[in-house]
Amino acid sequence: MSLLVVGSVAFDAIETPFGKTDKIIGGAATYIGLSASYFTQQLNLVAVVGGDFPQSSIMMLEEHGINTEGLQIKENEKSFFWSGKYHNDMNSRDTLVTELNVLGTFDPLIPESYQDCKYLMLGNLAPKVQSTVIERLKKRPHLIVMDTMNFWMDVALDDLKHTLTLVDVLSINDEEARQLSGEYALTKAAKKILTMGPKFLIIKKGEHGALLFHKDQVFFAPALPLEEVFDPTGAGDTFAGGFIGYIASSQDVSFENMKRALIYGSAQASFCVEKFGVERLVNLSQNEINNRVQEFVQLVQFEMKLK
Amino acid sequence: MSLLVVGSVAFDAIETPFGKTDKIIGGAATYIGLSASYFTQQLNLVAVVGGDFPQSSIMMLEEHGINTEGLQIKENEKSFFWSGKYHNDMNSRDTLVTELNVLGTFDPLIPESYQDCKYLMLGNLAPKVQSTVIERLKKRPHLIVMDTMNFWMDVALDDLKHTLTLVDVLSINDEEARQLSGEYALTKAAKKILTMGPKFLIIKKGEHGALLFHKDQVFFAPALPLEEVFDPTGAGDTFAGGFIGYIASSQDVSFENMKRALIYGSAQASFCVEKFGVERLVNLSQNEINNRVQEFVQLVQFEMKLK
Repeated sequence: MSLLVVGSVAFDAIETPFGKTDKIIGGAATYIGLSASYFTQQLNLVAVVGGDFPQSSIMMLEEHGINTEGLQIKENEKSFFWSGKYHNDMNSRDTLVTELNVLGTFDPLIPESYQDCKYLMLGNLAPKVQSTVIERLKKRPHLIVMDTMNFWMDVALDDLKHTLTLVDVLSINDEEARQLSGEYALTKAAKKILTMGPKFLIIKKGEHGALLFHKDQVFFAPALPLEEVFDPTGAGDTFAGGFIGYIASSQDVSFENMKRALIYGSAQASFCVEKFGVERLVNLSQNEINNRVQEFVQLVQFEMKLK
Repeated sequence: MSLLVVGSVAFDAIETPFGKTDKIIGGAATYIGLSASYFTQQLNLVAVVGGDFPQSSIMMLEEHGINTEGLQIKENEKSFFWSGKYHNDMNSRDTLVTELNVLGTFDPLIPESYQDCKYLMLGNLAPKVQSTVIERLKKRPHLIVMDTMNFWMDVALDDLKHTLTLVDVLSINDEEARQLSGEYALTKAAKKILTMGPKFLIIKKGEHGALLFHKDQVFFAPALPLEEVFDPTGAGDTFAGGFIGYIASSQDVSFENMKRALIYGSAQASFCVEKFGVERLVNLSQNEINNRVQEFVQLVQFEMKLK
């Protein structure tokens, strides 16, 4: 029941109130893949890097059970690079540098051995690249989840709208949901977006949790109140990785199971922000994940006695 | 098992993106009392109004089972008046007018018949007035809940700190918790505030729900994702009224029961914002409340299968 992850594998340089990093590895597919690797070992990656991307990092991905046969290496080019600086509240950031490099001409080639994939997670990429991946799969996966961002709403809205008609689950943040729908209230935004193609919509609200919408149903997964958010980079991708990883491992795409997947995604995201970059994600134990999920259960569970 | 509510009974004039009102009745104790009245009928009010406060509004409170024996009427003075304008996001507002009037010299006299009160809810008032109420009760209530605001942290911090040592539950919003503690992360803020007196701390996050802290425990009650927030005025007080009203009716001050009380408070607040002022609060049915609480249950409940 393999999971295919497509997205950026890249370099980040991050500055937060707690410190700054040199170029470290990042990228949506890196976070998604590492996060999902704690749930499923049938994990295939499609991405592109330049000759500057360290072999040791590719090995690290493989050690997490991520098949890198579909990772294209353009020896004479440079990897995608993003640099950003977080403000004191950690909820907003300035992008300092974006160098597309190899990502500018990314042609997502699907190895033959990936063709049986049952679950597809499309990390944030040009919507045209995302739809190309779907077209190149001979058999439609059982569940297609996509992430996107406001940038594509600004510069490639028609492509984005087409890709939306091809997927099952859209995962975006609250501001993106407002921009895509033109509605401020998230329930209204969700109603509109659910007419655009996806049958399920996840709206991520950062430290305020995440909402899952499907037909008339809505589920809310809180974020854990944390003592310290060290670096929020990749939290949304890590969330998506936990979500799709849990679904792939449980092979259940019902709304009830997606609730659980949302909690696992939130748990994974709560680890991600504890250290810079992927540092915390590379060394998780199943026990830590289970304990963290139990914290979520205790945070929101109550027994109601109706009057 | 009577509940004593102390706070402002006043006039508000409100402007939101949806419209504006003339002077309508408002005040913390008005919202708290009305909200709590759906849970307990042993409800005593201590407050002060001027001769301008309409007799019909006092009768409306009494029709909701609120005993107004402790409502002082200063015939030749004017009631407290607040006017505010909400911004488009409804999360922030500008205060246009604050006229203290009768509230400036409020001496909270406790009628003899109120002395048996088991639960005390201190709405936002000068901390010195709040502590005077506690001192004037011959027997300490079983549970004392207080609300306050950043204004008192600016102008009467020592009084506030003293009052904090006298109460069991403090209910404030996230910005107030940050200001009172000097900590940005709410879990850190909560730890500090729980050393200042209260054994329980509620941090209200508006549309993002509310947190309840007690020792090492934390519970999160979501806010219902609403299609339209018409007027947020009084939502925090309505929340507090539902919280203390539910506790007074269930006579259970355990953490487990406070979780339920938080959900009832959140449900009441979700009604409050649907119309201007107290309009929605005056005509609720038990059935509507139970249905709304069920929406909260469905919003957050999930069954976790640990891997």
